[in-house]
Amino acid sequence: MGSNTFGKLFCLTSFGESHASAIGGVIDGCPAGLELDLGRIQLELDLRRPGQGDFSSPRFETDQIQILSGIFEGKTTGTPIAFLIPNKNQKPSDYDALKDIYRPSHADFVYEKKYGIRDYRGSGRASARETAVRVAAGALARQFLEQYGIKVLAWAKQIGPVQDLSSEIPLRAAVYASEIRAPFAESEQKMKQHLQRLKNEGDAAGGTVHCIIQGLPAGLGEPVFDKLNARLASAFMGINAAKGVLFGAGMDFASKAAGTMNDAWEVIDGQWKTKTNHSGGIQAGISNGMDVHADIIFKAPSSIQKGQLTATKNGKQDVLSIKGRHDPCVVPRAVPVVEAMALLAIADFFLLQSKQSRSASV
Amino acid sequence: MGSNTFGKLFCLTSFGESHASAIGGVIDGCPAGLELDLGRIQLELDLRRPGQGDFSSPRFETDQIQILSGIFEGKTTGTPIAFLIPNKNQKPSDYDALKDIYRPSHADFVYEKKYGIRDYRGSGRASARETAVRVAAGALARQFLEQYGIKVLAWAKQIGPVQDLSSEIPLRAAVYASEIRAPFAESEQKMKQHLQRLKNEGDAAGGTVHCIIQGLPAGLGEPVFDKLNARLASAFMGINAAKGVLFGAGMDFASKAAGTMNDAWEVIDGQWKTKTNHSGGIQAGISNGMDVHADIIFKAPSSIQKGQLTATKNGKQDVLSIKGRHDPCVVPRAVPVVEAMALLAIADFFLLQSKQSRSASV
Amino acid sequence: MGSNTFGKLFCLTSFGESHASAIGGVIDGCPAGLELDLGRIQLELDLRRPGQGDFSSPRFETDQIQILSGIFEGKTTGTPIAFLIPNKNQKPSDYDALKDIYRPSHADFVYEKKYGIRDYRGSGRASARETAVRVAAGALARQFLEQYGIKVLAWAKQIGPVQDLSSEIPLRAAVYASEIRAPFAESEQKMKQHLQRLKNEGDAAGGTVHCIIQGLPAGLGEPVFDKLNARLASAFMGINAAKGVLFGAGMDFASKAAGTMNDAWEVIDGQWKTKTNHSGGIQAGISNGMDVHADIIFKAPSSIQKGQLTATKNGKQDVLSIKGRHDPCVVPRAVPVVEAMALLAIADFFLLQSKQSRSASV
Amino acid sequence: MGSNTFGKLFCLTSFGESHASAIGGVIDGCPAGLELDLGRIQLELDLRRPGQGDFSSPRFETDQIQILSGIFEGKTTGTPIAFLIPNKNQKPSDYDALKDIYRPSHADFVYEKKYGIRDYRGSGRASARETAVRVAAGALARQFLEQYGIKVLAWAKQIGPVQDLSSEIPLRAAVYASEIRAPFAESEQKMKQHLQRLKNEGDAAGGTVHCIIQGLPAGLGEPVFDKLNARLASAFMGINAAKGVLFGAGMDFASKAAGTMNDAWEVIDGQWKTKTNHSGGIQAGISNGMDVHADIIFKAPSSIQKGQLTATKNGKQDVLSIKGRHDPCVVPRAVPVVEAMALLAIADFFLLQSKQSRSASV
Repeated sequence: MGSNTFGKLFCLTSFGESHASAIGGVIDGCPAGLELDLGRIQLELDLRRPGQGDFSSPRFETDQIQILSGIFEGKTTGTPIAFLIPNKNQKPSDYDALKDIYRPSHADFVYEKKYGIRDYRGSGRASARETAVRVAAGALARQFLEQYGIKVLAWAKQIGPVQDLSSEIPLRAAVYASEIRAPFAESEQKMKQHLQRLKNEGDAAGGTVHCIIQGLPAGLGEPVFDKLNARLASAFMGINAAKGVLFGAGMDFASKAAGTMNDAWEVIDGQWKTKTNHSGGIQAGISNGMDVHADIIFKAPSSIQKGQLTATKNGKQDVLSIKGRHDPCVVPRAVPVVEAMALLAIADFFLLQSKQSRSASV
Repeated sequence: MGSNTFGKLFCLTSFGESHASAIGGVIDGCPAGLELDLGRIQLELDLRRPGQGDFSSPRFETDQIQILSGIFEGKTTGTPIAFLIPNKNQKPSDYDALKDIYRPSHADFVYEKKYGIRDYRGSGRASARETAVRVAAGALARQFLEQYGIKVLAWAKQIGPVQDLSSEIPLRAAVYASEIRAPFAESEQKMKQHLQRLKNEGDAAGGTVHCIIQGLPAGLGEPVFDKLNARLASAFMGINAAKGVLFGAGMDFASKAAGTMNDAWEVIDGQWKTKTNHSGGIQAGISNGMDVHADIIFKAPSSIQKGQLTATKNGKQDVLSIKGRHDPCVVPRAVPVVEAMALLAIADFFLLQSKQSRSASV
Repeated sequence: MGSNTFGKLFCLTSFGESHASAIGGVIDGCPAGLELDLGRIQLELDLRRPGQGDFSSPRFETDQIQILSGIFEGKTTGTPIAFLIPNKNQKPSDYDALKDIYRPSHADFVYEKKYGIRDYRGSGRASARETAVRVAAGALARQFLEQYGIKVLAWAKQIGPVQDLSSEIPLRAAVYASEIRAPFAESEQKMKQHLQRLKNEGDAAGGTVHCIIQGLPAGLGEPVFDKLNARLASAFMGINAAKGVLFGAGMDFASKAAGTMNDAWEVIDGQWKTKTNHSGGIQAGISNGMDVHADIIFKAPSSIQKGQLTATKNGKQDVLSIKGRHDPCVVPRAVPVVEAMALLAIADFFLLQSKQSRSASV
Repeated sequence: MGSNTFGKLFCLTSFGESHASAIGGVIDGCPAGLELDLGRIQLELDLRRPGQGDFSSPRFETDQIQILSGIFEGKTTGTPIAFLIPNKNQKPSDYDALKDIYRPSHADFVYEKKYGIRDYRGSGRASARETAVRVAAGALARQFLEQYGIKVLAWAKQIGPVQDLSSEIPLRAAVYASEIRAPFAESEQKMKQHLQRLKNEGDAAGGTVHCIIQGLPAGLGEPVFDKLNARLASAFMGINAAKGVLFGAGMDFASKAAGTMNDAWEVIDGQWKTKTNHSGGIQAGISNGMDVHADIIFKAPSSIQKGQLTATKNGKQDVLSIKGRHDPCVVPRAVPVVEAMALLAIADFFLLQSKQSRSASV
């Protein structure tokens, strides 16, 4: 299986570079007969789009999706759904300065070592632009999963040192009403201040995205290697700039004892629930019917205006100050991508489970 | 691909339950002609074996590996290498009490929901016993990778609230000289004290394993979905009780700015290096030739003697005190499993890379 | 995915050499809760076993299957089902003469070129002995598919120039009552005479196996690459000595016109049927609900007593007369293997279909 | 892995329907640094294009390929190569008559059963138009394989009862100089006469394509399931209207004895060769360095003008006479598709082999 494909039954194959004519994807395995609302897919793409507000790269892209196949009379046919998102606002000349230098903590050096060739325009395949493809595919997976009452929501929980401590689950509208995808007004304000300060300094911030999956039936995920948390971890770590992922109570699991952290079962009105949900909805790698919670840690974008010492292709030390269009923090634009990757992983497990795990009387 | 298989080219298929006659695995894709030291594979299994010291389950298993195929005159033949590890010390009656109750934070409930049937003896497939298979396969991968100078080492970095702060890389001998796989004497002492206290209380501790991969060439890992950190995250999160994984500087990436965290390139004696290694050897999902660093967060084992409230299969609340043979902390026995999963992931990427990434003049 | 694994959801991983301690397999993905009749699995292995009658290799193997995992209280648990078939009757010394010579049309040369190392004892992994693993796994798939009324039957249709022309579908009992798996008395007699003549000459015969799959629902198989006939062709061509596969009317399709060969739809008692079944139950790569028919062409076994000119490892011409235990025709022992491969392919498609193809209201 | 993807390392994902806006594909895994001649890819597409001559559907398509990604400064970058072929000449109204009737031996019934929904315009995904995608991808694989001296050639060997008996290997130019891809003048003449006669009758013919692969190194193909002939069989049987595949001496293997059919090794000028090549270049599922030969049997296209009895969606018998644009024989247009599928299969095995099979000193 190619490494640009995600999923076993509900599969997305992604393609495209920042400065080629288009990016796009092929979804293979979406069940037939799903009535698609294409307007909602475009809407989700609009939420990821750059050029929105003070803390987003000014690259202007309309990100208009074109669906090429797999839909007939508004419904999925069971055949591959291919889609394109044309690149409109390429400015390759912006990148000439980067042709012969390796940006610190960037893809430049490793692509060159890996492939012996590098499309340096806008970081080529390593560009965050590629994540638009995931958002489009995730939007489709969302419509598939909604039928079964499964929902995914993510938001900015931390930007730089500013962490939101609310345990509330926000409305999706509130998340996207915030320019930085931080739904809680007080922390949002502080996050913006932090971002503005770094922006002024020509620097950039890291942060954390929180993701919640609601309405999952118990039983999703496979024992041993393909655990639900293993697949989600892979899905999230495949997002540009992700440096870690934590489930449920996260770091607390390292320091606290079983007696404190175990989640006891109880039955209320015929519903199995755990009294607490430190596990974050996953036990032994399998969903237990409670909400899944994950935190994804993102580093700051490595492209900053601030001068940085690094080496050119020829091995000379040089000071690099990166011009061009860059975000001061990946978190706001990562929020819909986190949702998308969760949706794709869950759609795949949902299909796998309605299959193999059932009793033999399938 | 079955969900009990790990890898694309260097593949391990794992099988077996805690209380069936044997556990074992099949390695498909190991290159031919590799001279295997079977004694060293047994030695690595011995390091994972329970029944060693005060802080390990007293279940006694010899864990003698039997290789069934794929070796001829001491060398791999390129055909599947199957191996068995017989289960000797089954005590199924120990588990009768657990037949009709769902242990908190354990596999009981989710397996029953997933499969409609559950082998409750020793947790069946969810038993940590299964990880012996990974250690055996990892030991073989280690011998393959050593030829290219690639090394993997893990150790206990945190147990409960006790965290080792050394930035030193220990010797492997020092790690395994410690009963709890904590190579630094001072912190080891405190970790043991903490474990002893929890053991006395019938409780159990969580912790963190640190893993380092040395000697990796630049260029391993695939852009987009199958990034080196995405695969490693999946590999580590597939280990029982893992709740999170962090790469390089980990949580610091969330709070600190790019100017502080970026790793600048420099060339020293013709060698490309980064001045710092916050990235933990991975940039844009691809190895950059520096050491890879990861922290894996483990929760405490959920089976404890201390009474816990939970529900029976029939939905009645009950207090459960778990007898039987259980570890007070998974970290010591997780250490070799972390190494094994890293070795398997790297062996696979190594084969993938010596393939696709090269220039067309393969 | 390793090349010793067959299937996407119902997966068999096969291992073992002719002269190692055991051969065996791991079935990953068999649905949970299937009540298994282990006696019937052994019975199917007995039908493939060598040492039966005049036209089978005298190697004596009991082929006793040992199931190691995945079964609890007589039912599948959804976890991997591993099994072993020990090798009892190895006579490695028989093969010393073959160490340094390449048998004509045999695996010797190609394994050496592929792997740079070759287990020459009993042809190693290329031995037909490996097919016992497929028969065991197929027997399990049979029990899974029987629940849905799906049946697979194969028999010897041609041995050497003797072809059975009956269009009747025999009883399975009649097939296995015949030592050469040829259920029709008249042609069986002639086939045996042909085999006896070749055996006397130290030569060996080719032939054809016919396979029929009954009770398939319409809709199995995937458009484009993974068509039902594409997967079956791959399954059958993966059997040792297979040289071709034909579906439905086979060679007649090349010479005859559409007007003659097309299968018209009709509805009888509410059942959709085609008036003729030249298509052999498959149209556009998807089952249409009629019986699937395939012919698999096998070459004669290449190991014969008759002297043959060939070359030694050092490139010298030499005359080779092969001693040891060899069948005068693969067809009789290929019959259960053909059934097994069909069963494995169908079990996989059955799981795939009960998933993806349904309308979105899964 | 989605069922619209072919290959493990050199992967083609195909998408598109006859009457949607475009068909296309994504090639994932093509090594970086390959200098591509895009003009030659277009040229190969032109050879498959309909609307050429008397015996081809008059649908007019320019089949202009657009490459969207994966190429930089004329070379492959190692990232996915996506391409589009717009559909220009859709005439959906042609197909209204077929909306409610099931054509004999066509995809109509099975798609409806499989998916519960059917894009009836131009047969949707079941249209032969989809094979243009394979030809484009095969053309790229050809340029990759040419570097290593590997060549693939196919031609029309039989159309209806007219079979060419030449054992000569024609020039590729001669094949494509013939409107029906039959390079030998005498048989070509008779084939055309046969086709003209059937066309006049509103009927259609079947036939056979012969395929030869030259320059293969010994060692390609995997033992057991993923044999070279198994994969090629799957590749060829995935082509529309294919009903069988035979390797080397084909049907002769069934009737003839080992003594006649075995291929003896000899060494001439240091080169290992077999005196005869009945095996068709494959032994034990692995290439032996001789030319690979295969015959692929195609049925006649099922869409004919001649009146045929069949059933409507409501189960009524009706006589159907199919208007629209249809080929009187698939063989001429299948010839480049056979080449393409062989090229894709070989490219994949070539990458697999340069990996796993080597001795451990990769």
